[in-house]
Amino acid sequence: MSRYVVIGDWGTSRLRLFRLEDGRITARREGPGIGTTGRDAEAAFADAMAPWLEDGAPADIRLCGMVGARDGWVEVPYADCPADADTWRAAAVRFDWRGAPLSIMAGLACTSDEGMPDVMRGEETQIFGAIALDPALGRGRHLIVLPGTHNKWSVVEEGRVISFRTMPTGELFALLRDRSTLGPKVEEADPAQEAEGFAEGLARSGDGRLLSSLFAARSMRLRAGRPADWVPGYLSGLIIGCEIAEIRSALGSADDILLIGDARLSARYAQALAAQGLPSRMLDGDACSRAGLGYLEN
Amino acid sequence: MSRYVVIGDWGTSRLRLFRLEDGRITARREGPGIGTTGRDAEAAFADAMAPWLEDGAPADIRLCGMVGARDGWVEVPYADCPADADTWRAAAVRFDWRGAPLSIMAGLACTSDEGMPDVMRGEETQIFGAIALDPALGRGRHLIVLPGTHNKWSVVEEGRVISFRTMPTGELFALLRDRSTLGPKVEEADPAQEAEGFAEGLARSGDGRLLSSLFAARSMRLRAGRPADWVPGYLSGLIIGCEIAEIRSALGSADDILLIGDARLSARYAQALAAQGLPSRMLDGDACSRAGLGYLEN
Repeated sequence: MSRYVVIGDWGTSRLRLFRLEDGRITARREGPGIGTTGRDAEAAFADAMAPWLEDGAPADIRLCGMVGARDGWVEVPYADCPADADTWRAAAVRFDWRGAPLSIMAGLACTSDEGMPDVMRGEETQIFGAIALDPALGRGRHLIVLPGTHNKWSVVEEGRVISFRTMPTGELFALLRDRSTLGPKVEEADPAQEAEGFAEGLARSGDGRLLSSLFAARSMRLRAGRPADWVPGYLSGLIIGCEIAEIRSALGSADDILLIGDARLSARYAQALAAQGLPSRMLDGDACSRAGLGYLEN
Repeated sequence: MSRYVVIGDWGTSRLRLFRLEDGRITARREGPGIGTTGRDAEAAFADAMAPWLEDGAPADIRLCGMVGARDGWVEVPYADCPADADTWRAAAVRFDWRGAPLSIMAGLACTSDEGMPDVMRGEETQIFGAIALDPALGRGRHLIVLPGTHNKWSVVEEGRVISFRTMPTGELFALLRDRSTLGPKVEEADPAQEAEGFAEGLARSGDGRLLSSLFAARSMRLRAGRPADWVPGYLSGLIIGCEIAEIRSALGSADDILLIGDARLSARYAQALAAQGLPSRMLDGDACSRAGLGYLEN
């Protein structure tokens, strides 16, 4: 039997492990997020690894994400921007774990022109993976965005991450949709109404005035006949549209924009970017993760 | 015994009644919000009035607020902007209640230049009260803002409410402070840290980019040594600063800005307005309410 390799993303809310043999994924395992294990991280990791360890120690283990945070398993200092893949890889913490070499990758830190610090842990792996997979990203200036709870917008120049900005858009959207008085709670919105709301939110976001347009989620229902199903789409379109308007002025232009993440959310971002005249393309997040951890697909 | 008058503000979360005799407040009563009484509004009102009714029917009863909403006691259609005090008063619904003439005041509705509808119920009473109390507001162009959960920014021209905009700033702030991952929950922030956070949030709001600066609530703690106590002030300063920047571009300039509401929150708005070079002054909310309902102080 060939020796196997384990790579994984250990975030706040879950652990995802992949077993690679000859460059192909042959098995997956999940475990608890580092946010719940805290100082018992090693025991949780051993649990998740147990069935695979019966085949002996892996040839290599590489983990990225919040596992390297202060409250994670082992704290790994951030690599500072501008950072290329070599700088970032050199910042990993390596140690022997039950006979296998284990690396915990570093996060990235930067400071904006306005003096605002920012950090990421986990997303940098996909960004460096995207650069490894697409030689075009090694030249010119590109924006890479990972949409999610806390979106990371990164400026990549000549293959280096120059700076980035975290936009907690996903969290803000969820708070407004689920916990605000702006709209009634909608369990499952009618897709047509949601799409209409999204388009209307995008249109309203043109002036970049988020606060001024939030209340329309309620007033358009009260006074303009919009149904409850319309509200989540409207809020999403408005917030994402404002996010993109802000990013354009904060990070400047780029040759192109790449989206890494959930397909449905990425499609919304692509639509919102197109509405502002910005073309984008989507990348496969899993392939980026693997490439970022040093294992290109065969 | 002179006959008495009852005026009141019946909002979603509470009923506040004032007994006036010879123009002076001689007693107050509270009751449940119209949001909880729903269709039992009349019974709740009778309960709150019971001790006073022992003195006979009042000479007049005037109520403003959500009591006139669709789910209130009696629905009172909105008066459309532009509206002056006479138009608005004429839109009240009047009926006899246990031998007393009872008026439920109308709310106001408007549509922004961009086609966005907006509504208020209750705040218009304080706005018309402010105009009644201060003859200077009957001429020129003024902004009147009632800060709270859903801030109402109104443009008053020649004594008429031309248009207004609801900014759900207070609700957004509470969601981010209490329910987001941007900061740890702070029961009672140290006032010095809070003031520092507020000033820093205001400074950061200069470019009007709310989403881009939200994450600093977390990253400044992680990377720049800010304490947890600093976060609520920062969020408040950032959001209020962005609100004012948006309002300036949405509603245009004015001769002056008047604040009606909670003294502590109004002081924050005054500070934020001053930081953008806008002078403001505060008005007594209770006096405005009484004047709006037609009872000027003696």
